[in-house]
Parts: sequence; structure tokens; C-alpha cells
Amino acid sequence: MSRTMAADIKRHTGKEVELSGWVHRLRDLGGVTFLILRDRSGSVQTVWDKLPELTPESVIRVYGTVVENEAAPGGMEVQGKEFTILSQAEGNLPFAVPGDHTRVGIDVLLDNRMLSLRNPKLRSIFTIQSDILDSFARYLRGLGFTEIKSSKLISSGSEGGTGLFPVEYFETQVFLAQSPQLYKQAMVAAGMERVFEIGAAYRAEKHETARHLNEYVSLDVEMGFIESDQELMDLEVGILQAVCSDISEKNPAILEDWGASVPTAQQLSGIPRIPYDRALSLLSDRLDRRVFELTPEGERELCSWAKAEAGIDAVFVHSFPRKKRPFYTFPNGRKTMSFDLLFRGLEITSGGRRINDYSKLTKNIVRSGLDPVDMEDYLSVFRYGCPPHGGFAIGLERLTQQLLGLANIKEASLFPRDRRRIRP
Amino acid sequence: MSRTMAADIKRHTGKEVELSGWVHRLRDLGGVTFLILRDRSGSVQTVWDKLPELTPESVIRVYGTVVENEAAPGGMEVQGKEFTILSQAEGNLPFAVPGDHTRVGIDVLLDNRMLSLRNPKLRSIFTIQSDILDSFARYLRGLGFTEIKSSKLISSGSEGGTGLFPVEYFETQVFLAQSPQLYKQAMVAAGMERVFEIGAAYRAEKHETARHLNEYVSLDVEMGFIESDQELMDLEVGILQAVCSDISEKNPAILEDWGASVPTAQQLSGIPRIPYDRALSLLSDRLDRRVFELTPEGERELCSWAKAEAGIDAVFVHSFPRKKRPFYTFPNGRKTMSFDLLFRGLEITSGGRRINDYSKLTKNIVRSGLDPVDMEDYLSVFRYGCPPHGGFAIGLERLTQQLLGLANIKEASLFPRDRRRIRP
Repeated sequence: MSRTMAADIKRHTGKEVELSGWVHRLRDLGGVTFLILRDRSGSVQTVWDKLPELTPESVIRVYGTVVENEAAPGGMEVQGKEFTILSQAEGNLPFAVPGDHTRVGIDVLLDNRMLSLRNPKLRSIFTIQSDILDSFARYLRGLGFTEIKSSKLISSGSEGGTGLFPVEYFETQVFLAQSPQLYKQAMVAAGMERVFEIGAAYRAEKHETARHLNEYVSLDVEMGFIESDQELMDLEVGILQAVCSDISEKNPAILEDWGASVPTAQQLSGIPRIPYDRALSLLSDRLDRRVFELTPEGERELCSWAKAEAGIDAVFVHSFPRKKRPFYTFPNGRKTMSFDLLFRGLEITSGGRRINDYSKLTKNIVRSGLDPVDMEDYLSVFRYGCPPHGGFAIGLERLTQQLLGLANIKEASLFPRDRRRIRP
Repeated sequence: MSRTMAADIKRHTGKEVELSGWVHRLRDLGGVTFLILRDRSGSVQTVWDKLPELTPESVIRVYGTVVENEAAPGGMEVQGKEFTILSQAEGNLPFAVPGDHTRVGIDVLLDNRMLSLRNPKLRSIFTIQSDILDSFARYLRGLGFTEIKSSKLISSGSEGGTGLFPVEYFETQVFLAQSPQLYKQAMVAAGMERVFEIGAAYRAEKHETARHLNEYVSLDVEMGFIESDQELMDLEVGILQAVCSDISEKNPAILEDWGASVPTAQQLSGIPRIPYDRALSLLSDRLDRRVFELTPEGERELCSWAKAEAGIDAVFVHSFPRKKRPFYTFPNGRKTMSFDLLFRGLEITSGGRRINDYSKLTKNIVRSGLDPVDMEDYLSVFRYGCPPHGGFAIGLERLTQQLLGLANIKEASLFPRDRRRIRP
């Protein structure tokens, strides 16, 4: 007999099935025991006259007959016949797997990540994350983008060497890359024109917030032959439309479980695009004080404004001043062709057109206080002829967090790393 | 007017088109100049009475009329009308981009990676690599696998701490992960059952060969509720069938350019599966001396044997002795349920069933000279109940190398890292 998944038992009413999975819940009513068996597809109630000594989370294989029972979850249950323990779990779990984990503190959940990820709701975050990875890649491939994998070990920082983790590399020292910026630009210039990369990015910053990770997954995009950053915002809207429509089609139950909904394609194409200066003056009006900078509070407030204005709590802020952006950002007068996307109160993307002219770029490097000699690899991309281009990066964990409404970004990382957390 | 790609000009015969791309070749015949323009789709001959001063690799935009010309490559050319230089390349390139690069040494190509990747043939390696990434993920998603992203910063090595790169992490030290072994097993045990990960893996080994990289991309698979490693070999055959059929469908021209062909689905399902002991005795016979170990020479010889025997130069070697495999390998008498896949003379995969019993695993850790206390995170996966499971890892660069017949694995890494090479 071959294995039947919990979600499929309806198709086997009256038949004998083999099920495998975890002991999710055990309820002994004296004379009859209910065992909820959990597998990757869901869970199913099994009923037993007699069971061996058994601990929750043990892995079992059972045979039994599928019967209708209105009182059972989903209206179906399995009357147990044969029982095998494949792996007995220890009895003293630090917390029970089923149920609501909001009362368990996040540090306990993360310290016991191997156990807390067994909770179907907590694990479902990563089903959504897997969907995002799929939709992102598939949408871009459809537009002729090539997926690249660049090195995460770099000899110097693309933005001046602060915030880097040093790595002992044989007889020398290298650093963990903050972004594949240099490499994705190089591949556009090398003729791929359109590239994306899904890879780890590292920030050695000592922040301790609900929106920062020291290691995260960056969804990077870079595209040649663009004229303005508006084309990049168009592209990002297309990506988000694909992601949101795929998620709501594939996993509506997970969204419901989290009380989350995703924006429609129409809402996403209506995301307002406002210049940085306008964002500040809007905030000054709404907060009733002079606002000089985009703070987390401001990001939330701008999204509320967009929600009222355009029916979606997201906004592209563009035309950032030069001093707010990295040296490679394409200038446009005293401003730049650059943008952030704020989504549900949080910056999830930063991007823009890049300078593609060698001498302009060299001047900007000097102006930023960096040394062009240290940037020789970077500059060689432009010495050999480089098309106008730009790109952006979406933080995978931030996007996951905002789509599901998670309080802390660490919930959206399987094994998060922060200043103190380096295990499991 | 919107941009036409070089590969599409046939559809515009007699019409005016806008083209953008790189100056691939320039040939001045006095009075008439031929300029081959290269873009991501291919290249096209353009013809000019007069051109501005221009260097190879400069990025240009041109307007012109598409005409038939039997003498032109592809039978079509564009009679140039208007010309804009978008980015002028420096004149003194270290080598010309077009043509055959086999005479340029690999170190020169890698030192000048930003330039050598402009060569369409060298760049095409990464088109194939992008195809592999796509096929691998799509095939596994179709079987209910979830894509995961685990941390690459670990507090200790999964196989005992040798060959690890140390990272300065705030006030402490961590290491770059050699593989996502612990994490993918954890996610199987957590109930995802079937997971895959595409991520960087690091080996601090001082090898200097044509088949080793210190940083590579590992295609990792882990699957619950298996009984034997034969099921894993079946799964790998399915993956390779998907990869090979997709590549030959999407990019036959690249295969042809490299003089490469990929095995058929039928050939792949016929890959012989032989026990380690049989592999050694086969080698002893064929090499006419007692063979005690699987060396690179032996791997090549076994593939020749398989080619003659089964029509495909690939072979699964399984049932490795316990001392040849990591502590977590599932024992089967004095042997193990483990395998390598040798493909065209090179090991591209290592895998097997894993021990899922807590006490057996603890004993094996001690027997391997490791300390269970250091392995607490790893062991907690099994304390909480873990299904029988197994998995494998395919080296992305090795698979790319073997599919295209590349002499050196570094050609299959965009920005390879070896003992001496840390840039660009």
C-alpha cells in the first residue's frame, strides 16, 4: 500500500489507507483515544481503542479505514487498525507544538527553532516564502532575465567598507558581501542586460529592531537600457503583482490563518510615486511639525496617507537627494534617479538608475571620500563600455513579514542571525 | 520607436528598426564600414558609409533599415542611418572580446572577468547555469518540495570543524557553512518533509585542482519517509532528466557551440548503480592492479565502463563503507545507505539516507571522535521525533562543467574563489 496524505483522505472514504506523520495531539477519553496525525499536507483525526505508550511529536505510520464523521475536523476520520512508531520523541518538550504561540516569547521560539517550526502556523510562513522565491524568479525569467550567482566573499566593500563582517581566508582577509551590486552591474555590462540574483546579504550593523537582520536574503534585479527609474518601479509592480496573485491562488488558507490579505493587481499598479521632498512636506503637514528625514514613523505615516489616497498602503518615494544615496546613484540635478518602496509601513526595496559613465563615476567616488584605486574592479565594468542601467533589491524577509503582518522580521527567517543570536 | 533585438530583425525586413548593444566587431573596408552589433539575443551586421570615432565594446544605439543580404551572417543586415554612442569604451582592452579564448590562459580570463564574460561563448556558460537553476527548482516544486533558505553562519561545523572559514561576528567567531545539512534535516523533521535549498557552500581546503572551488553553489535536496537510498537515486535521475531536456530544448545553439550534448531521459534512467566494493573490483580488473580507493582516475575509469556497459558515462556508486562517510550516514551492516553520482568522470553528487534515531546518532558522534555537547542543536532535531529521511547535494558548477565539457570548474563560476583568487 502506498502512503496517502492527510489532505487527500476524502478521496478514500470507506477504504483502507496508510498514513505517515507526526503525533500532533493525543486525547485519551478512556476506552477510546483520538490521535491527530500531522503531515506536510495538513492533519487528520485517527481513532484508536488501544495505543502503545506514545509521546507528542513522535513519528508514526498507521493503517486504518477512512469513515465519515460529522464531529471530526473536516468531517472525516480514520479508524485505526495498525500502528508503527518510526521515531519516538522525548517526553519533555519545552512547549507544546500545537496551538497559538503568541504567548510564547519570540526568544523562546527562536532558541527552540527546531521545535517551534513544527507548529503548522509558524512553519506556514516559509511556505509563503517559498512561493515568493518561485514567483519572483518565474516572473523575471518570463521577461528574459538570467539568474546569476555571484561570490559572497569580497575583497572590499561596495559602499566604503563600513558594516562588513571580516572572514579569515587562508593567509588573507576578505569580507561578506553586503549586496551583489558590483556583480549584477558587471553582468548587465557583460551583455546579459537583464539579471537577477537570489542570495544572502550581510550587514555588520549593531541594530536591535524588529525590522533588521544581520544576514538576510536579497532579491536583486538589474536591468540594462533603461532611461529612468520609473521603468524600475514599473518592473517592481509587475513582480509584486505576480507574487501576490500566486500566493492568494496557491495558499489562501495560510493568508486566512494569519488574518492577512494581499493587494490586488489593480491596487499595486496604483501605488503612488512621490518625490522625496513632497514626502517630507506631506509628513510635515500630517505630523504637524517640520520633518527633515524619513524615519520609521514617517514610513508608516506615508503608507497611511497612500492608503487613504490610493487605496493601498504602499508608496514609492523617489528623487532622493544625492547625499542620501550611494555614490553610484544616477544624479538628476541635485536629486537622484532613485527610489524606495514603502509597503505597509516598512521600506522593502531600495533601487535606482546607476551612473554608467566611467569618469562621472570616478568623480563621485572621490567626492564620497573613497579611493578609486580600491574600486578598480568596480570601475573596470565601466571602462569597457556600459549601457544605461539600474536595478533594485527586495528584502525577502521584509516582504514576507509585511505580506503576513508579522510583528518581528525574525519570524520570517528560518534561522535568524542577530548581534547575539548565532544558533541554532 | 521601440528597441528591436538582434535575433528578431528577420521579422522587420524592409522596415526601419532601433537597435541597442555593444560594438562586437568593426571592419573598415574604405568607404564602407561593417559594424557587428551584439545584444543579449545575439548579433547583427550593420553597414555604414561613415561612423564616428569608435572603440570595440562601446555601447551604442542605432537606427537603420533591415535588408536581405546573402553575404551577411544570417542573411540579413541593417543599413545604418543614425548613430548614438551611449558609452564609449577605453581603447586598450587587454584582449579582444570576440573569437576563440582557448588560447588566452584561464588566469588572464579570470583576472579580467569583467571583460572576458563579454565573450558570448564564455557568457553562455551562465545561460546554461541559469537554466539548471530553473529546472532543478521547478522539478522539485512539482513533487511538493518547499524551497528553504538557511543561515550560512554557523557556530560549529556539521562534520567536525575542519575546513571551515572563520568569520569575525561582533564579539564572537562563527564559521561559513560547508553545507545546509543540519538545516535541511531540521526542516524535514519540522514537517516540511521535502525541501530543497540553492545556496553558497564553503570549503576552506587548500586544493588547487580543476574540480575544486572554495565557494560554490550547492543544490541541496532532503526528503522524508524514504526507506532506502535507491529512492534518492530515482529522484536525482528525475532531476537530471528535467535539467537535460530543458537545456536541449531552450538552448541547443549553446550546446552546439560547446560541442556538447546532454544525455537523453532514457540514458539517464539507465545509469548503472553499483556497490562500492564492486566498483573497486571492476577498477582492479580494468586497471590491472589492486585498487583500494576511488581516486579521480578511478572515477573516470568507472564512467568509461558505464559508457560501454549502459551507453551513458555516468554511474551511481553506493554502499560505501562506514568509515568513508560522515557520522550521520545510515548504516547497513558494515556498509551505509549512501551514494555518489559520477558523471562524465567526475563526482557531482554525494548523498544517502541519514540516521534518524537519536541514540544511534549520539553513539555515532562519539565513535567519530566528536562531542555530542557541541552537536546539541543538531541532536535536538532527532530528540523531538524525526522520520526516516535522506538527501543529496549536487554541485552546480560541477554539473555545469560536465554538461558543457569545460576543462576547469572555474570557468563555470562567475567570480570564482580559490586559495589565491579573491577578486574581482
